Amino acid sequence: MPDDPVPAPPPDPAGSSAEASDPRTVSLSRRDLLHGSLIGAAALGTLGAPALAQAQSPVAKGTVNHYHVRATDKSVHWGYFSKKLEPLVTVNSGDFVTLETVTHHAYDDFERMIQGDPGVEAIFYWDKKRKGVDRRGAGPMDASLFGRGAGEGLGVHICTGPIAVKGAEPGDILEVRILDVKPRPCANPAFKGKSYGSNAAAWWGFHYKELIEEPKPREVITIYEVDATGERDWAKAVYNFRWIPQTDPYGKVHKTIDYPGVPVNHAFTKKNTGILKNVRVPIRPHFGTMGLAPAEADIVDSIPPNYTGGNIDDYRIGKGATMYYPVSVPGGLFSVGDPHASQGDSELCGTAIECSLTGTFQLVLHKKASLAGTPLEKLNYPLLETQTEFVVHGFSFANYLAELGPKAQSEIYSKSSTDLALRDAFRKMRHFLMTTQKLTEDEAISLMSVAVDFGVTQVVDGNWGIHAIVKKAIFTSDG
Amino acid sequence: MPDDPVPAPPPDPAGSSAEASDPRTVSLSRRDLLHGSLIGAAALGTLGAPALAQAQSPVAKGTVNHYHVRATDKSVHWGYFSKKLEPLVTVNSGDFVTLETVTHHAYDDFERMIQGDPGVEAIFYWDKKRKGVDRRGAGPMDASLFGRGAGEGLGVHICTGPIAVKGAEPGDILEVRILDVKPRPCANPAFKGKSYGSNAAAWWGFHYKELIEEPKPREVITIYEVDATGERDWAKAVYNFRWIPQTDPYGKVHKTIDYPGVPVNHAFTKKNTGILKNVRVPIRPHFGTMGLAPAEADIVDSIPPNYTGGNIDDYRIGKGATMYYPVSVPGGLFSVGDPHASQGDSELCGTAIECSLTGTFQLVLHKKASLAGTPLEKLNYPLLETQTEFVVHGFSFANYLAELGPKAQSEIYSKSSTDLALRDAFRKMRHFLMTTQKLTEDEAISLMSVAVDFGVTQVVDGNWGIHAIVKKAIFTSDG
Repeated sequence: MPDDPVPAPPPDPAGSSAEASDPRTVSLSRRDLLHGSLIGAAALGTLGAPALAQAQSPVAKGTVNHYHVRATDKSVHWGYFSKKLEPLVTVNSGDFVTLETVTHHAYDDFERMIQGDPGVEAIFYWDKKRKGVDRRGAGPMDASLFGRGAGEGLGVHICTGPIAVKGAEPGDILEVRILDVKPRPCANPAFKGKSYGSNAAAWWGFHYKELIEEPKPREVITIYEVDATGERDWAKAVYNFRWIPQTDPYGKVHKTIDYPGVPVNHAFTKKNTGILKNVRVPIRPHFGTMGLAPAEADIVDSIPPNYTGGNIDDYRIGKGATMYYPVSVPGGLFSVGDPHASQGDSELCGTAIECSLTGTFQLVLHKKASLAGTPLEKLNYPLLETQTEFVVHGFSFANYLAELGPKAQSEIYSKSSTDLALRDAFRKMRHFLMTTQKLTEDEAISLMSVAVDFGVTQVVDGNWGIHAIVKKAIFTSDG
Repeated sequence: MPDDPVPAPPPDPAGSSAEASDPRTVSLSRRDLLHGSLIGAAALGTLGAPALAQAQSPVAKGTVNHYHVRATDKSVHWGYFSKKLEPLVTVNSGDFVTLETVTHHAYDDFERMIQGDPGVEAIFYWDKKRKGVDRRGAGPMDASLFGRGAGEGLGVHICTGPIAVKGAEPGDILEVRILDVKPRPCANPAFKGKSYGSNAAAWWGFHYKELIEEPKPREVITIYEVDATGERDWAKAVYNFRWIPQTDPYGKVHKTIDYPGVPVNHAFTKKNTGILKNVRVPIRPHFGTMGLAPAEADIVDSIPPNYTGGNIDDYRIGKGATMYYPVSVPGGLFSVGDPHASQGDSELCGTAIECSLTGTFQLVLHKKASLAGTPLEKLNYPLLETQTEFVVHGFSFANYLAELGPKAQSEIYSKSSTDLALRDAFRKMRHFLMTTQKLTEDEAISLMSVAVDFGVTQVVDGNWGIHAIVKKAIFTSDG
């Protein structure tokens, strides 16, 4: 892992006595601002193109805050983005936030991923009378569509947030620097020092209709172990089991994995151990879902990624990376969820190693008026900058909410293709090269064919994704 | 570049006095065989699965030969594979071949890529009466389909070969180890020490109908310079020009790039210099087209890749890599062409940096009867092994010649999609993991979602490609 591009943020106040009284357990601290010149070093200024550093500094002078948001039933929204959500906190541009994020697959193994962790237990709480978080998804609360449960599971990710940024307005760009990502240690003493994640090969996976072994079809969940200290850079499989119909505490039977957070009763599953022996899965901790609330609808399914980010599912969105998002609603409303210990490009079977993580972010607002002549001018898609690469994310539909009309949120699931996503990635990379490198279209197209790599981000999130990667080292000042 | 996995081959006899009398200038030498134990170290034996080394050694004991095939009008076939071609030479399993390969785009800049090089001049020779190589493509010799020229350009790559392997029969596997790849130095004294390549953004490119700048549509050729010594690991653009109608020596006007080897008359082009300033394109020398003759047809367009390899266009097929191909016809009939100095995943605009290269290969035959219980058992697709990765190549149609019927060679151009190629890559990677690692289907599918990366190989070769990469380091003996 390369060195951080920016100095360490002020200390995270979590665990100190400086608890806020906010029921969502937002605590905060204030420190002197010492990093007014960070921008440019960390960001697009390295391009040699008009540097952000030359634009008006978007970081307010004075103090910097570092907020810590605990994951609890009060600090998360489950399965959707919404411009109607009350922000947990409103931060200044340049402030830091540490966000605990929780995987929506934790109930696949209660002992390893929920038990003993008060925040996670509160989120997943579900008895005959009450759920810790009732709405799960953007669907109807009375489950009148499919009968799965409140929100219908039309959207599945537990998202921590939203965080508002003071002064953010549509047309601005929010820069999100990911300064740290850590696995959430298992709270059960029986598994001290470990973290765990779940991989579901599920009905929405690309493989599902292609199975060759019996029984067909089937859903299979594999539990992986991760070293919580972060010292071991690989995960290993612990066991797998076939999904069998699960009856939730309200009495609804879930024949397939059709609603998030359904408690898995392992009294009836068959655990296969000794699987994937001699296999070490390299870990790539990252956030599958991260982004801003879109303006186009009041409540939006968390599954399909879109122009304001969301469920992009690119493993490169991890420590040391920076995302740039178009702001669509006042305050931006930043949320993070779907934490992954690792994922391959394509997320083929439907999920990654879904594993609770805690991230520390710095949020930097770039006002629309300051963008002219900078590399962020006319940026209308989520852009990723890593230590060594720039990555654009193409989708089957760049803004499916606007393009597919009133029924966009259901239509998107039947209209995706990687061919469309590749076309979108091509268009975005062309825009990136012409804007940030001032290339002609002919120069950009030649460069894309000889030095840009297009890969399959995911084919399981409704709005399928193809990304395009260009290495920073290609751009020199003495070529 | 990592160290070679195998010892150096016997000296290349080219240029020595040991010339053969064969008009195709095949020369050869014989040396004692000292490498009977190579297999396994270089190949799948590193997997820990039943190693090839445990199978009967496919390398004949005794002597090893190293053949050098010069590129001339007599040693190439242009635009097609064919089981009917007479082999240039028949080698033993374990022998080495050095093959000079020539880019079919050389006439985009005669001065830099043809002039002064007798072999290349002979290949591209074309006056009012005669062409050095008449047939270019798998189409009719009388050009009755489109009138473009003999072979109609239905297939464009200049392929050096074929090389037959003694005893190779359908059902066997041919292992091809790429021991060295070097740019072909420019023979024109004015450009000493350089090599050059051409990138054509052409009508078959993915971008072509999506252009935003005028004039639309247009084809643009960019000439890149490569250091012939191989010391500089990047290429730079020299100039570009827009394709304008070119009249070939037979009087046919080519409004677009519709026939390979048409001389470009630069008296009428407009060269734009000073392009892609401050851009260094990392070089990735490799062979875009490499493989065996298929059994399904007598003459096969060189453009769509298929189960016997061919125009896979994966930049990883370079020095230090090994390919495994299913043998489809007696002798295998190995040919190499379409040399590239560099290419990005997708080859978006239609071509790479098309640049003549010379490769040294070792050919190792694995007989069908020896495959049972080895990682090569039931391999019916081209498999790539690099120093650090295994890569399978999915195509829209795994064997389009067999799947699409009598009109397969034209149908393939209208039926491709990356969705189909992704499905094929998934199936192949599942087969690879279940066969070589003895995983269950459930283990393989989980691993594919969390640790295998799917990328876009190319979307410009008729039969579009998606590849899947798994890192060797994942497989340990102590996990």
